[in-house]
Amino acid sequence: MGIVLKNIQAIVPAGSKDEVKETSIYIEGDKIVGMGAEPAGFKTDKVIDGTDKLAIPGLVNCHTHSYMSFMRNVADDLSFMDWLFGTIDPIEQKMTDEDTYWGACLAIIEMMKSGTTCFNDMMMNIKQTTKAIKESGMRAVMCRGLVGSAEDDGGRIQQTYDEMEFCKDCDRITFKFGPHAPYTCTEDYFRRVSDEAKKAGIGIHVHLSESVAEIQGTQEKYGYSPIVMADKNGLFDVPCIAAHCVQVDDADMDIMARKGVSVVTNPASNMKLGNGFAPVPEMMAKGINVCLGTDGAASNNSLNMFHEMSLLALIHKGTHKSPQCVSAREVFRMATLNGAKALCLENQIGSLEVGKKADIAILDLNNPSLMPKNNLIAGLSYSANGSEVDTVIIDGKITMEGRKVLTLDEKLVYQKVNEIIKRMGLENKDYV
Amino acid sequence: MGIVLKNIQAIVPAGSKDEVKETSIYIEGDKIVGMGAEPAGFKTDKVIDGTDKLAIPGLVNCHTHSYMSFMRNVADDLSFMDWLFGTIDPIEQKMTDEDTYWGACLAIIEMMKSGTTCFNDMMMNIKQTTKAIKESGMRAVMCRGLVGSAEDDGGRIQQTYDEMEFCKDCDRITFKFGPHAPYTCTEDYFRRVSDEAKKAGIGIHVHLSESVAEIQGTQEKYGYSPIVMADKNGLFDVPCIAAHCVQVDDADMDIMARKGVSVVTNPASNMKLGNGFAPVPEMMAKGINVCLGTDGAASNNSLNMFHEMSLLALIHKGTHKSPQCVSAREVFRMATLNGAKALCLENQIGSLEVGKKADIAILDLNNPSLMPKNNLIAGLSYSANGSEVDTVIIDGKITMEGRKVLTLDEKLVYQKVNEIIKRMGLENKDYV
Repeated sequence: MGIVLKNIQAIVPAGSKDEVKETSIYIEGDKIVGMGAEPAGFKTDKVIDGTDKLAIPGLVNCHTHSYMSFMRNVADDLSFMDWLFGTIDPIEQKMTDEDTYWGACLAIIEMMKSGTTCFNDMMMNIKQTTKAIKESGMRAVMCRGLVGSAEDDGGRIQQTYDEMEFCKDCDRITFKFGPHAPYTCTEDYFRRVSDEAKKAGIGIHVHLSESVAEIQGTQEKYGYSPIVMADKNGLFDVPCIAAHCVQVDDADMDIMARKGVSVVTNPASNMKLGNGFAPVPEMMAKGINVCLGTDGAASNNSLNMFHEMSLLALIHKGTHKSPQCVSAREVFRMATLNGAKALCLENQIGSLEVGKKADIAILDLNNPSLMPKNNLIAGLSYSANGSEVDTVIIDGKITMEGRKVLTLDEKLVYQKVNEIIKRMGLENKDYV
Repeated sequence: MGIVLKNIQAIVPAGSKDEVKETSIYIEGDKIVGMGAEPAGFKTDKVIDGTDKLAIPGLVNCHTHSYMSFMRNVADDLSFMDWLFGTIDPIEQKMTDEDTYWGACLAIIEMMKSGTTCFNDMMMNIKQTTKAIKESGMRAVMCRGLVGSAEDDGGRIQQTYDEMEFCKDCDRITFKFGPHAPYTCTEDYFRRVSDEAKKAGIGIHVHLSESVAEIQGTQEKYGYSPIVMADKNGLFDVPCIAAHCVQVDDADMDIMARKGVSVVTNPASNMKLGNGFAPVPEMMAKGINVCLGTDGAASNNSLNMFHEMSLLALIHKGTHKSPQCVSAREVFRMATLNGAKALCLENQIGSLEVGKKADIAILDLNNPSLMPKNNLIAGLSYSANGSEVDTVIIDGKITMEGRKVLTLDEKLVYQKVNEIIKRMGLENKDYV
């Protein structure tokens, strides 16, 4: 199908930065086949009028746990231990396969409605989640959360291979291995997972240096930091995306810079659970590829990347008392191309360029948050809230139009997640 | 006109906290005349079905500069001096009366669409702004920014009296005196303004202790802090709302607590301009009435109180490394009833109660951000983005329905603010 975005403002790469430019974008099959002039032999099936519209590359959410979306606002303003063991764990005990599916559907609807077209997910039930991904038209990178030791991981590495096999019919889904964290994996398990990743030729997605408790525990057990533990056991010898990295020192950052580790920062989750602020400006200065993620809806509680972009652009200006610290332009890169790089998809997604996949969010500028039409890259971080996203194209297919998701039944999903919460006795529950 | 919100979830006060409760709300004239059972003799003209809806008291934005909205995203990621003198000041030199009007219209549209029904404005051209307020149906507290000395203030105090006279036909508009800041007013001017405020029986709206430069300048000039300067010169002897208070020490906070000063915190603006984080948890602990504001669109760049609530609920958890610090429930109070108190309007607005003005925002829960329907007070701060607001009632009149503002012409306002920016050579301007 040939789709044209006609005379539209678009954010496009211009060297190391991005710029807003009026153009036309031609889509054929799953790809952008032309920008500016119409390519020879292009067959137009659908024209989207670009008046008062802004096309941006679909946002890349580099760290989430999509199934948790049905747990949104279930456990707030609690200490980490009360949150995890008092509320989230008991819910997960009662969770069925189908609950995972509806949770993932809700996550996908929220992400699509706020311009995210690709997400990096750490999950327990991949088959149910990827069912939602396949149906919805989303793009995702999946990993099963791996916990245990080299001798006994409950068959989780083997499950990852089974799940890769299960998804081989959908090229929008790729995989990583997902060793959960230093406090849920042994050193020899990190080693075993990195060996498997090398063998399989895929990357790693891991939680590292999120809380002070994690640092202290790792230091006591091994005598070094989580970053050193990961490095010593091979996790950084394959493409690695490390979530959080809040509690990292200079030596940790030097290791990650040298090994080409990508760091996903999750500002809302890190603040909400009381973990603090990741040293993002310092990591940028060291040349680390920093990208952006929302974490799950049980600890954020939003999967809206516009919210996350705003936080990222603001908080470091506050902590560093500098209005120049982490610019809106840098934030936009982190939410798009840097994310694509972290997921090893930079040749396919992350920017609007001929030859790349057509993963595009189209914003309606007729919203007060983006008026007047000035400095739109700044507007994305500082004044937009995500509801300006009108149309979403993923892999060349229109998955949302006029804010209506075309590929999932929104009302049914809302009904189902409310039924889950009701079954668990949490419906309309007020504060603890 | 008798309006019923039938069988609706509503956030209502329950002692010192708020709770979500299903009820029906009866509106007659400008007031809530009943909740729960239909009041005797009530005549129903319109029924709003409460299914999947949430009624909240309209949000109270306690510090903004509405006319600046046409300067949204004009000057970002700049140092304070480059921002103010390099960009904002030159624009203000070129600004006409009509520009102020359209700027205020844009601000009101943005606020209404994100559930704000009352705002506290510091302005230069009150007549143009209040024209927009009168037309739109908004509620506002106005003050002219007063700068100068007791001998020469360019006639600004007199202008305030003239403007009060100009607005006496609209009881949705009340006034404060607005001494701008310690660095733009002399001590004797602070004294003169507080004497006038006492005489007129109205309160004060002032910027205090925003930046380190302000603290240093005041300390050098007078030998004490901006808070002490304000206190010594009578500003706290009338109801006073102090914006920012980022750089305050224990002694400053004790003075404000003792004198019953209300503090408006503006998290986005304070971070964006590199001023840091106000000690909100410490002020709360001292019993200071803390409320919430967006500041102007030239330094935020959003007037969306949901964005601000989210920041307020998150950042102090980050700085204090405590997930219990500043709860979502406390944030909701700061954005509603605490704001009403600060504006001396707590008997009229700030909560859904019989006898108060009908200032109500109705959210559509059929949005992924508020699904599942659980712990909705938390949801307002952590997952909603403001676009869930479907209908707004101010002073008993429906001013927005189905997200369409009924009282202003949105398209015309967008056209006009773009014309202003074009005239000033800033249209579609990219980053500096």
